[in-house]
Amino acid sequence: MLDRPVRVALLGHGTVGSAVVRLLTGRAAGLRDRIGAPVDLVGIAVLEPARHAGPWRHLLTTDAAALVDADVDVVVELIGGVEPARELVLSALRSGKSVVTANKALVARHGLELRAAAESSGAALRYEGAVAGAVPVLRPLRESLAGDRITRVSGIVNGTCNFVLTTMTRTGGCYRDALAEAVRLGYAEADPTADIEGHDAAAKAALLAFAAFGAVVDPGEVRRTGIAEVTAEDIAAAQASGRVVKPIAVCERVDGQVNVAVHPAMVRADHPLAVVDGVLNAVLVEAEAAGELLFRGAGAGGDATASAVLGDLVSVARDLAAGVTRPADAAPVALPVDPRGGTATGYHVRVEVDDRPGVPVEVGAVFAGQGVEPESLSRRGSHVVVTTRPAPDPAVLSALDKLAVLPEVRALPRALRLEG
Amino acid sequence: MLDRPVRVALLGHGTVGSAVVRLLTGRAAGLRDRIGAPVDLVGIAVLEPARHAGPWRHLLTTDAAALVDADVDVVVELIGGVEPARELVLSALRSGKSVVTANKALVARHGLELRAAAESSGAALRYEGAVAGAVPVLRPLRESLAGDRITRVSGIVNGTCNFVLTTMTRTGGCYRDALAEAVRLGYAEADPTADIEGHDAAAKAALLAFAAFGAVVDPGEVRRTGIAEVTAEDIAAAQASGRVVKPIAVCERVDGQVNVAVHPAMVRADHPLAVVDGVLNAVLVEAEAAGELLFRGAGAGGDATASAVLGDLVSVARDLAAGVTRPADAAPVALPVDPRGGTATGYHVRVEVDDRPGVPVEVGAVFAGQGVEPESLSRRGSHVVVTTRPAPDPAVLSALDKLAVLPEVRALPRALRLEG
Repeated sequence: MLDRPVRVALLGHGTVGSAVVRLLTGRAAGLRDRIGAPVDLVGIAVLEPARHAGPWRHLLTTDAAALVDADVDVVVELIGGVEPARELVLSALRSGKSVVTANKALVARHGLELRAAAESSGAALRYEGAVAGAVPVLRPLRESLAGDRITRVSGIVNGTCNFVLTTMTRTGGCYRDALAEAVRLGYAEADPTADIEGHDAAAKAALLAFAAFGAVVDPGEVRRTGIAEVTAEDIAAAQASGRVVKPIAVCERVDGQVNVAVHPAMVRADHPLAVVDGVLNAVLVEAEAAGELLFRGAGAGGDATASAVLGDLVSVARDLAAGVTRPADAAPVALPVDPRGGTATGYHVRVEVDDRPGVPVEVGAVFAGQGVEPESLSRRGSHVVVTTRPAPDPAVLSALDKLAVLPEVRALPRALRLEG
Repeated sequence: MLDRPVRVALLGHGTVGSAVVRLLTGRAAGLRDRIGAPVDLVGIAVLEPARHAGPWRHLLTTDAAALVDADVDVVVELIGGVEPARELVLSALRSGKSVVTANKALVARHGLELRAAAESSGAALRYEGAVAGAVPVLRPLRESLAGDRITRVSGIVNGTCNFVLTTMTRTGGCYRDALAEAVRLGYAEADPTADIEGHDAAAKAALLAFAAFGAVVDPGEVRRTGIAEVTAEDIAAAQASGRVVKPIAVCERVDGQVNVAVHPAMVRADHPLAVVDGVLNAVLVEAEAAGELLFRGAGAGGDATASAVLGDLVSVARDLAAGVTRPADAAPVALPVDPRGGTATGYHVRVEVDDRPGVPVEVGAVFAGQGVEPESLSRRGSHVVVTTRPAPDPAVLSALDKLAVLPEVRALPRALRLEG
C-alpha cells in the first residue's frame, strides 16, 4: 500500500494534455476515491512555457528528460510522434515508472521494445487513447474477450477521413472541397497527409491486430489505400447501389496469418459501420462465441482522448496505490502478415462503356476469365456496374487491366472494395 | 506465482454452462497462454447428472456445496436464481475463492453482501455476463471510464422484450402473437414474466447503476413498466411520427440522486438504439469527457454469455496464476434513488377524440394547465397526437387524468415515454 499521493508527470500540454490537466483538477476527489490515493501532478513538460497559461503554470518545464527522471510514479506521454517520445517513454519504463500514452505512432512502431522494457522492470504500459479516442476498444479486446477467439476486427478509426467521406456523401461534392471543410472546422490538420493517406489508420490497425490476435504488425506492413482518389462519382455510385463509402481498417486472422489493411470501401447501408458518420469512430469485433460486437463513439478531440487516458491512469495508479503488479500480457504470437496483401474481398467496379448491346456480358466475361465471379452486373447509363464475389486481389487487378484495354471501354475502370 | 493449474468448479450445466465447458475444452491451449497456467475443470454441479452427456460426464456431481468446499480456486456460478446460488457463492467468497457469475438477480439483490465477503477474503467477484451477454459493458464502465464522470446510461438489455417489440414493428401484429413467436423460436421462456414485466431489465439496470455511479440500487426500487400493454396501435403511432418503440433501461444521475427505470419508450429513428433489433442488446453511455459511447452485440444465448464468463475467468485466473490480488473497487456511493420516480421525460400521447374543430387546442390546453408544455400537437384521423417537452411524471399523469374525462375524448389516452 502506498501511503502518499501517486506522482504523475505529464509530457505535452496540447489539446489532449490540457484536457487531462482539466480533468485531473476538476475530478480530484473522485479520482482519489477510485485510486485509493490522491494524484499529485508534479510537472508538465512543454516546448514553450510562455504559450501555456493557467493555475498549473508553476509546473511547466522544458526539461522533459529531467521530469521523467524525477521522483514520479507514472509518466503520461502526450507529445505525439516517435522522438523524443520514444526515448522518454523508454527511460521511464526502464526505471520502473508506468506509462500511459495516446501515441499510436510510437506504440505501433516500437511496441515490442516498449513492452520488453515494461516487462523487465514490472512497469505498466497503457495506450487505450491511441485507438478510437474515448471508445474503449483495446481493453475489451484484450480482457473482456480474453476467453474467446477473435476472428476479425474492422472499423472506422480515422475521424478526418470519415468526416471527409461523410461530407462528400452529404453534399455530393468533391474530395478537395470536403477536405477544405474539414480543415476549416479543425477536423483535419493543415497537413492532413498522415490521415488522408492512411498512415494514422495503419498504426491503429496494427495496435488492433496486437490487441485482438497478439500479432506484431509493423505499420509499414499494413496494406494501405488513402481516400484522396475517391471521387464524387464513386460516392454517387455507392449510393445508387444502396451503399456508402467509408474509411475502413481491417484486421483478420486467416489460415494462421494476419491480414491488416486500411482503405476506402463500400459498405451496405444496413451495415453497422454505415451509420457511423462525421468524426465518429467505431470498431466492429467478430469473435467465435461473442458474435459481432460494436463499439462506437468520439474518436478524437481533447476531452474524448483525455477520458481514455484518465481511465488508464486510474487503473495504473490504483494498482500502484494497492502495491499490486499485474501480470504481463501473454507473449506476442508469431502470426505472420499475409504476404499476398490480404484475403479475398468483393469489389464494386464501374466501367464507362460504349452504348451497345452485349457489352455488359463482355465485361462479365473478362472477370470470369480471371476467376472472379460477378455477383451482379448491370448497365447504369453509360456505365456497367459489376459487384464481384470475394476474390483475391491479383485476380481482380488483372481483370481490371484486361478491362482497361477493351475497345468498348472508354475510361479506366473504377474499383472499390466491398466491406461486410 | 502459481506452479499448478488453476482449479475451476462449475455450478450449472445449462445453456451457458455447457457453452463454458465447450470453450474451456476447445480453447485450452489459448487459455493457458493467456492465463499463464492451465485451467483444470474439477467438477460440474448439476441437479440431474443423467440429463447431461459428454466427455466431461465424470466431473458431474449433485453436491454443489461439496464442490465449492473442495480444493478449487475459482467457482463459476451459472445456476441462476437467488437460492441456492447465494449460499454457494457466499461460501466460496468467504473461503477466499474467486467467483465468476452471470447471475443478475443474485448480484443485483445481494451485491453488497457478496462484495463484502469478497473484500474481506481478498477473493474476486466478477459478473460481466450478467448484463448484455457478450457485450463488454460493466468493465468499460468501471475501468475504462474510471477517470470520467458518467452522467447517464441507457440501453436495451432484454433481448426477449426487444424481440417482441421488433416483431410487432416488423409485422404490425399484436403483442400476443409476437410473444408466441418469441417462445416458438426459443427467445422467450415458457413463463416470460420476468422478461416481459421488466424484472430482468430492472436487475440489469441496478447493476449498471452500480458500475456507472457506484450507487447501490435495489431492483425493487427500479421504476418498472412492462411491455405487455404496448399495442399494435402504439407501434403504428410511433412509426407515423418517425419513431420506434423499444424496451429501454435508464440510469441517470441527477442532482445527487440516481434515477433508475425500465419501460417501453418511443425512440427517434435516428437514435443509436433505434436500429438495435431482434434479440440484440445495446448500451449507450454518456460521460462528460468521453461523450456518447455505444456498445452493441448479442445480449443472450449460451455462447455469447459464455464469452463474457470466460473473459472474467481468464482475468481472475491470470491474477491467481501471477499471485496478484487486485485492489477492491471503490466503496459504493451513498447516492439515493430518486423518490419521485424519475426525472422529467417527454411523452408521446394519443387521444381518440370527436371530429370537430377546436379539439386539438383543447387537448393542448389540458397539458398546459398541468404545466406540461406540448412540443407538437396534431390531428391524425380520429386522434390527436401530442408530444410534450420533458415534464415530471405526476404532471403528465394528472394531465392524462383530466383528458380522460373530457367529453370530446372517446377512450383512455395512450401515453408512451420519449427517449433521446
